[in-house]
Amino acid sequence: MEKAIQDYYPDRLCHCYGCGSLNEHGLLFNSYWRDGAAVGTFLPGPYHLDPSGHTHGGLLASLIDCHGNATACAAAYQAAGRQLGSLPMLRYVTAALHVEYLLTIPLASLLELEGRVREADGSDTVVDVVVRAAGQLCVRGTVVSVLAAG
Amino acid sequence: MEKAIQDYYPDRLCHCYGCGSLNEHGLLFNSYWRDGAAVGTFLPGPYHLDPSGHTHGGLLASLIDCHGNATACAAAYQAAGRQLGSLPMLRYVTAALHVEYLLTIPLASLLELEGRVREADGSDTVVDVVVRAAGQLCVRGTVVSVLAAG
Repeated sequence: MEKAIQDYYPDRLCHCYGCGSLNEHGLLFNSYWRDGAAVGTFLPGPYHLDPSGHTHGGLLASLIDCHGNATACAAAYQAAGRQLGSLPMLRYVTAALHVEYLLTIPLASLLELEGRVREADGSDTVVDVVVRAAGQLCVRGTVVSVLAAG
Repeated sequence: MEKAIQDYYPDRLCHCYGCGSLNEHGLLFNSYWRDGAAVGTFLPGPYHLDPSGHTHGGLLASLIDCHGNATACAAAYQAAGRQLGSLPMLRYVTAALHVEYLLTIPLASLLELEGRVREADGSDTVVDVVVRAAGQLCVRGTVVSVLAAG
């Protein structure tokens, strides 16, 4: 089975509310590295709605946040010619998050995320993340990810 | 008891994952209008953590999102000289969300949010939201809120 980028994080970093495999109350979102981009899907729960009954904007921001850092991580390993999971870990945390909501998303829609590095200077990485539903571009995000210690 | 801004939303808009009083799986966040600003507090759950064990950035974005729209709503009622809850409703939805994470926040910290309108032109409203913990400014957000129908 294909391992997610998050599966290469050490256990102590696997409790994240958005993407930690060890957080039983979390979203359990996974990102996969394919051909220079990170991809992932998520099916919101029936309670992840906004006041209008569409998919909640904060949920979308949460997924973009985790996916952006996973993208930065995987891209940094690739740029360094290193295997994901090798130590010391190239771990990225969010300095800033920007999200544009272009189209509302019906709640039952599967979300498809794609993240690509726009620029990286070794410590700061800017990642563009798009969210599509039913093939349509619905949300555009940017994550400024910063290399963290350990 | 002081009513929250969200308590003036009609029931059909009270299922929001972030701030809907009728969403039993939601965050149940409330915003209060005081002296030209919206304020609110939130205590994250023990599972609302990021990979490093601090308060999750996506959770913070979710709260800023809901709080920004509540600020825009209450400010619009005030600018129109109308009572909150009077019809037709002045309802705001998020067009864009920007979040800067200045300091990490220990998980058990009470979050204090304050939202103020920076500019409003009748349909678009730009709201600045700050998040403090233990008196320190930790997160700065901007919500571009747009007047929605009904």
